[in-house]
Amino acid sequence: VERVRRVLTARGLWTERLAGTAPAQLLVAPFSSEIDAADLARVEGIAQVGVAPSSHPLVDAAPAVARVRDVEIGPGRPPVIAAGPCSVESETQIRAAAGRLAATGVKVLRGGAYKPRTAPYAFQGHGAPALSWLRRAADEHGLAVVTEALAPEDVPRVAEVADLIQIGSRNMHSTALLAAAGRVGRPILLKRGMAATIEEWLCAGEYCLLHGAPSVIYCERGVRGFDPCTRNLLDLGAVALLAGVRRLPVLVDPSHAAGRRDLIPALARAALAAGAAGLLIEVHDDPGRALSDGPQALHTEELRQCVSA
Amino acid sequence: VERVRRVLTARGLWTERLAGTAPAQLLVAPFSSEIDAADLARVEGIAQVGVAPSSHPLVDAAPAVARVRDVEIGPGRPPVIAAGPCSVESETQIRAAAGRLAATGVKVLRGGAYKPRTAPYAFQGHGAPALSWLRRAADEHGLAVVTEALAPEDVPRVAEVADLIQIGSRNMHSTALLAAAGRVGRPILLKRGMAATIEEWLCAGEYCLLHGAPSVIYCERGVRGFDPCTRNLLDLGAVALLAGVRRLPVLVDPSHAAGRRDLIPALARAALAAGAAGLLIEVHDDPGRALSDGPQALHTEELRQCVSA
Amino acid sequence: VERVRRVLTARGLWTERLAGTAPAQLLVAPFSSEIDAADLARVEGIAQVGVAPSSHPLVDAAPAVARVRDVEIGPGRPPVIAAGPCSVESETQIRAAAGRLAATGVKVLRGGAYKPRTAPYAFQGHGAPALSWLRRAADEHGLAVVTEALAPEDVPRVAEVADLIQIGSRNMHSTALLAAAGRVGRPILLKRGMAATIEEWLCAGEYCLLHGAPSVIYCERGVRGFDPCTRNLLDLGAVALLAGVRRLPVLVDPSHAAGRRDLIPALARAALAAGAAGLLIEVHDDPGRALSDGPQALHTEELRQCVSA
Amino acid sequence: VERVRRVLTARGLWTERLAGTAPAQLLVAPFSSEIDAADLARVEGIAQVGVAPSSHPLVDAAPAVARVRDVEIGPGRPPVIAAGPCSVESETQIRAAAGRLAATGVKVLRGGAYKPRTAPYAFQGHGAPALSWLRRAADEHGLAVVTEALAPEDVPRVAEVADLIQIGSRNMHSTALLAAAGRVGRPILLKRGMAATIEEWLCAGEYCLLHGAPSVIYCERGVRGFDPCTRNLLDLGAVALLAGVRRLPVLVDPSHAAGRRDLIPALARAALAAGAAGLLIEVHDDPGRALSDGPQALHTEELRQCVSA
Repeated sequence: VERVRRVLTARGLWTERLAGTAPAQLLVAPFSSEIDAADLARVEGIAQVGVAPSSHPLVDAAPAVARVRDVEIGPGRPPVIAAGPCSVESETQIRAAAGRLAATGVKVLRGGAYKPRTAPYAFQGHGAPALSWLRRAADEHGLAVVTEALAPEDVPRVAEVADLIQIGSRNMHSTALLAAAGRVGRPILLKRGMAATIEEWLCAGEYCLLHGAPSVIYCERGVRGFDPCTRNLLDLGAVALLAGVRRLPVLVDPSHAAGRRDLIPALARAALAAGAAGLLIEVHDDPGRALSDGPQALHTEELRQCVSA
Repeated sequence: VERVRRVLTARGLWTERLAGTAPAQLLVAPFSSEIDAADLARVEGIAQVGVAPSSHPLVDAAPAVARVRDVEIGPGRPPVIAAGPCSVESETQIRAAAGRLAATGVKVLRGGAYKPRTAPYAFQGHGAPALSWLRRAADEHGLAVVTEALAPEDVPRVAEVADLIQIGSRNMHSTALLAAAGRVGRPILLKRGMAATIEEWLCAGEYCLLHGAPSVIYCERGVRGFDPCTRNLLDLGAVALLAGVRRLPVLVDPSHAAGRRDLIPALARAALAAGAAGLLIEVHDDPGRALSDGPQALHTEELRQCVSA
Repeated sequence: VERVRRVLTARGLWTERLAGTAPAQLLVAPFSSEIDAADLARVEGIAQVGVAPSSHPLVDAAPAVARVRDVEIGPGRPPVIAAGPCSVESETQIRAAAGRLAATGVKVLRGGAYKPRTAPYAFQGHGAPALSWLRRAADEHGLAVVTEALAPEDVPRVAEVADLIQIGSRNMHSTALLAAAGRVGRPILLKRGMAATIEEWLCAGEYCLLHGAPSVIYCERGVRGFDPCTRNLLDLGAVALLAGVRRLPVLVDPSHAAGRRDLIPALARAALAAGAAGLLIEVHDDPGRALSDGPQALHTEELRQCVSA
Repeated sequence: VERVRRVLTARGLWTERLAGTAPAQLLVAPFSSEIDAADLARVEGIAQVGVAPSSHPLVDAAPAVARVRDVEIGPGRPPVIAAGPCSVESETQIRAAAGRLAATGVKVLRGGAYKPRTAPYAFQGHGAPALSWLRRAADEHGLAVVTEALAPEDVPRVAEVADLIQIGSRNMHSTALLAAAGRVGRPILLKRGMAATIEEWLCAGEYCLLHGAPSVIYCERGVRGFDPCTRNLLDLGAVALLAGVRRLPVLVDPSHAAGRRDLIPALARAALAAGAAGLLIEVHDDPGRALSDGPQALHTEELRQCVSA
């Protein structure tokens, strides 16, 4: 048994020997490496390998690269930048932004038409009109569009203009919305819930795929932390795991993770280094007048430096 | 007031207007950018700026680059790799490790002589003899030595061999140990406590400096998280903040953060991209026989690939 | 200034003196006692008090006691027990349960017709038919009904049978659902999100009230924790704050907090001692055959002991 | 297998069937009820039960009731109140406090001579003289003494006056201090670390017992949380587990948990209802002049109401 344990340890697995069992049984700790069960079964001295059944078989079988319009997102592809203002504030604003961003190498235009806000009296987005502004602005510059759907009933309207439907952190656990978003047959950008485990996140992806989504791109944006210096706690271990080990397409949103502009370039670089296939970044060229989240928006020029660094 | 708020927002600050005050007062939210108070006071329309007093003036005034023997660690310097086995298991082991690591570009040899273990029946380190093995092995290859002190009474003995005294996560809040470590006048590698806020971490650094440490290097190794897929949750936002904004020397320990070998190279790259001045990595060439933490140790060859990538 | 600080400290406020301000300014730390601003302004030596504006004025003005059918829930009222199976599994089951529970002093019958499940292949509830079974069973025994709505489109159907509409933890941040639930004009049982701050929870309550809910009852069910021994981490400090300081109606769900039957009676008693106006408890008389959450369901007899203790 | 699963579920266990095993294997989830392995092995259909070995056999075998001088602390004994000022500020203060507290039914006098403070410039305690003041004050009124040791070297001096040696949250992971405290042969009050798992906490207790402590009393004082409304997040699920299931002596410190006086009475009552054998409460009769933690100290009169309620 000790020999088998050494072999497993050498493969990166934390094991614990269960008392009271014959033949001897080893329990593999949850944060161990992902290793194929069939592989383990071939280790000399191992009689059988029991595995907890997966709750997300469609996710497990999904390809590593997702296609959003003509943009490929996933491991081995050039990093994709999705950028734009937090909220679509006016047609003028979003057209100007689209032009500047396209010139910076951005491939996907982001902008909120429906905004999930903690406080009910905060600006909730311009809704349907903002969707058309966003689409026209993107079309002028050959950009794909990602925008968020907040309620099942909004999904069809969002799907008319969006190449990629965003499900926000606040709604990652809303299975009704996940199903509705899946049914319209568009790729989905699934932001991780504020305190969602990786299993819960993948199960949310499974809901999307099961109801018809052609692909799901996972977006890490920081989980709830205890330190008031940053808005959230960016979990790049989750990114390394999803992108590098599970081979799934992952974007990182350093804007919401940091909540402060001065940390965004460093976290953007770190995200790509951890294996993210791209970034989702808030950009605003007059952040003092932004209707939401101004303090965490980069200027286009800062984005350019951040991307080219 | 609204004009001033726009200016502050444009600078990356989240503000809230306090009701009931004349002249108007704005509160700046805690996760906003760090901006100099004198700078703010020059903004037109701002009459005065109140700031909470710092609890760590020595840290605030510390230079960005620390020197450990002849190795410089800090922003703008080449990344420094401190590597070695979790525990110093024998003189043979550490000498062999030192040779291989030096050939890989490692500048600092790490290895535990006193091991802080959650369970009292786990291997606690070889103690004093391991210290001499470590020192001799390092000297043969011109390496600096970092090793941990667990108790105030061990500090003098550790200081005899260590160029850099490590205070572990479990002891970051032990002010008696911080003071004892400071008094011997060596640079200190201060690992962040399991759930320490950045303020608490800097205050721990202040204890070290106040009692005589010439410099403190901060080591992020992941905070306690809720997801069982990784051992800890690596907080690279804290790294970006300490290294990039506060200009302090920061190392990252991806081994303890991930707890699993398959994520370490990605997190190591991410750490450097986030601004870390170097890495602290567990390396073992026969991890199946490691006396502690084998599943998270890289082979020297994996380290080489990870460093050169 | 020091005299004023002492007065504030004596009142339970943590203060910090801001440097660089004349006249002197004190910042009151966020976890201090709640004290009326007008009250503070009367302290000798205080010239003015600035307060961050509330994001939830309707919540602030709401009465302490909510009425669900003929049951009053809130401080100063007898504790209300809402109990029943996690899922409504059959008409027979829920009728039998209603009879037993009514005999135990339960006033509100709970049971899921639409179940939010992490995994898409888990039992999702019997839907509309389960709603009628639930209503009939409750009516036979003069019980009020609480059941969950998962999607805005289900709200009208749920409102036909429910005296109290439950919004689950997974949906606390789904503003579209909060608004839809508010519009039907029923009281709402608002479970706290997995990692929702108290401010976010109260803002979610504000959405409900703003869209028409006559009252909101807050239900603490544990937040995400790091310890695997319990399913969640029950936050009775939040209960003491909402019930005792803010004077709002609060229920506690010890079943989801503990996730294990052996801790539920102790946590139920603790919840009432902390100021909860009642409990939401899962009861199943054949937990081995429950379609969901059997291991955390009490038998009716255990509930009886727990309530009478 | 399904029949066996039902039996286990009915006993409060969450099970998962492992695929690929013959005979079938079930994994019991970590937050399930504690059930004796021998008991399980008697369930019809279960061939063998494997259990992870305990890391704390001495804790597992420890009696439920600890004796501190002539005071018994544990399940089934009357609740014990340990109270006093955060810091021993002067001999006059502690003598007056001891008199008032003894009259209120307090059995154990607490007071800090060595204070662990986050910031090095905060008051660190009067040290050795405070120890004698504390002892004399306690002796005048027949009280036992609990006070904290911060460093291994202070332990003998603390042990001369203390009937119960407190290890603070910041030092729960300091194995050198745990061992030193164990060696002097006094009962130990072991506060839970800021983010310590229950396993880690019990392992810390094992260190104390292994080095000679006659008994360990566990003190829950709140873990690190994400909500700024309370100083920490009180985990009464851990209390219910340790006191009710594991049958260990547990105290609760509502003062540090809440960090605000207005929540302390409610949390104190909740703690006792959850199964705590007693309370550790900060009391100060002139909190505006307290040298530490004034805003969370109760007046003696408030303590009296809180205890008699």
